[in-house]
Amino acid sequence: MRAAVITRPGGPDVLAVQQRPVPTPGPGEVLVRVHASAINRADVLQRSGRYPSPPGVPADIPGLEFAGEVVLNGAGSTLWSVGARVCGLVGGGAHAEYLVTHERAVAGVPDALDWAHAGVAPEACITAHDALVTQAQLRPGDTVLIHAVGSGVGLTAVQIARQLGATVYGTARSDVKLDVARDLGLTAGATPGEPGWVAAAARGWTGGRGIDVVLDLLGGDYVRESVAALALKGRLVLIGTLAGLESSLDLRYMLSRRLTVRGTVLRSRPLEERIAVTQAFAREVMPWLANGVVRTRIDATFPLEALAESHALMESNATAGKIAITM
Amino acid sequence: MRAAVITRPGGPDVLAVQQRPVPTPGPGEVLVRVHASAINRADVLQRSGRYPSPPGVPADIPGLEFAGEVVLNGAGSTLWSVGARVCGLVGGGAHAEYLVTHERAVAGVPDALDWAHAGVAPEACITAHDALVTQAQLRPGDTVLIHAVGSGVGLTAVQIARQLGATVYGTARSDVKLDVARDLGLTAGATPGEPGWVAAAARGWTGGRGIDVVLDLLGGDYVRESVAALALKGRLVLIGTLAGLESSLDLRYMLSRRLTVRGTVLRSRPLEERIAVTQAFAREVMPWLANGVVRTRIDATFPLEALAESHALMESNATAGKIAITM
Repeated sequence: MRAAVITRPGGPDVLAVQQRPVPTPGPGEVLVRVHASAINRADVLQRSGRYPSPPGVPADIPGLEFAGEVVLNGAGSTLWSVGARVCGLVGGGAHAEYLVTHERAVAGVPDALDWAHAGVAPEACITAHDALVTQAQLRPGDTVLIHAVGSGVGLTAVQIARQLGATVYGTARSDVKLDVARDLGLTAGATPGEPGWVAAAARGWTGGRGIDVVLDLLGGDYVRESVAALALKGRLVLIGTLAGLESSLDLRYMLSRRLTVRGTVLRSRPLEERIAVTQAFAREVMPWLANGVVRTRIDATFPLEALAESHALMESNATAGKIAITM
Repeated sequence: MRAAVITRPGGPDVLAVQQRPVPTPGPGEVLVRVHASAINRADVLQRSGRYPSPPGVPADIPGLEFAGEVVLNGAGSTLWSVGARVCGLVGGGAHAEYLVTHERAVAGVPDALDWAHAGVAPEACITAHDALVTQAQLRPGDTVLIHAVGSGVGLTAVQIARQLGATVYGTARSDVKLDVARDLGLTAGATPGEPGWVAAAARGWTGGRGIDVVLDLLGGDYVRESVAALALKGRLVLIGTLAGLESSLDLRYMLSRRLTVRGTVLRSRPLEERIAVTQAFAREVMPWLANGVVRTRIDATFPLEALAESHALMESNATAGKIAITM
């Protein structure tokens, strides 16, 4: 099979398409012929040598999500017929023509979703749904603030939070990205300013009450800024550290407002947790993708052979939405 | 009635016993004749003018917990007979001969508990139980680390965590305090050292695995130190800031180990939450106090008239356990 391979740590040019053996599904697994995938920030980090893949996945083939058809069942795998359309998350190896995964770690793809949109959905949808619902326990009526709201996860989170009955605010580096989010249900947004800008914006949006749930894809000073913007019993879920690996924390706010800061990451989760988030995605989010009230926005599409170009585009930070890969 | 009164912000000498009218129980409330109470850190802060009492409680009478007998039911109050022995938390006003509180915000006191031990139990037991069980979701088999383990809350938390099937470690400023905690079930302890001392101790205790739940009464650098000591999916509950109001936070740890940091405070909680924590205390902790497997240690006892002396003792940080007040 053809597979994208990281030939050595480096820039986009270290990516090459090579021939690899088709993997064999073990007991409880399925072999999937991949039709579409997407680029994620973790692929770029892995390529540059800063984010090794977890044990049990191909170490040099990137790709965290996929949509494709089941072509072979492993011993004892009974959930899917050959030809079934499925999508899901893997710890790596999705930028290839075939992959194996556990039969319970995939979701059925409804007819309404084409391959590209199914292939770019799992990472953003599962990350956003897990962070908002499972980690932050989002409730109807909550106010939500999403940093990097123009990212793939950000735009998906806006729509999921809206479907769950929340009022959604966001921040982004440009008004153009905020406009894209506004079209998907963002009530208001802000771009970075003087220290205190997040809390100031939040007070204005919420009449002084503050934000119930912050979804923070950036880290760094955004953590301190966001903690100051939280309402009583507010929760911040940190899912990325692009803006920095450290933050100071105001412990008075943490105590007197009874706040929670939680870090979370999907990629390193053990099988049982990967299955659990995928099943929640299939049950709670896929119906919204099927009827179109949640859409994963595709900013650009590349064939596997142009993976280097797609990495360069992601590193430019100029996209609003997902970058799709087709086989 | 006699009541301890903060005559102005200042040192222990601003406390005076004055005559005040006996309060009247409103609908759903009970009038309690207080037999015993305790000193808490918040009383000292309130006396020095740094921690105003919440709305709805006497602003100048300190005292957050009590044990006493019901002497009068308000309109529609039916839960307690006159003479019933009860204890509980109030937002303030417990350092007086009488107080009023909601009939559902008190727990019945078993015969096995004398007034002094019932009067020093609620704050430490409810704080420790709420932090460990409700906030940190402690599970049997978890490892727990308690900072300021020689404090009233610390020593109570050791015993509650042990009853819940956890292995308990602790830190204190002196080996003497650690010895007191050891007698109550502490497996091992450490005193402050070089930066990294908490994580180093935790690695030693747990064979490198880390701590599942940290109960942090101190804040400041203890937060950063403790985050580095947490195991995968570990939780730090912050309930005090004696060691500082700021900490830096390593966001890589937060993400990759999927950690939670939560601040919490009891005093400012609304009635429905005060009732909920008291009911949980009555159901889950009081049986342990009744049969003696959890004991609240009394370090010293003072009459109401010697409240100034009791404040001075608390400010000396020399106690291991609670300071009781009797009427």
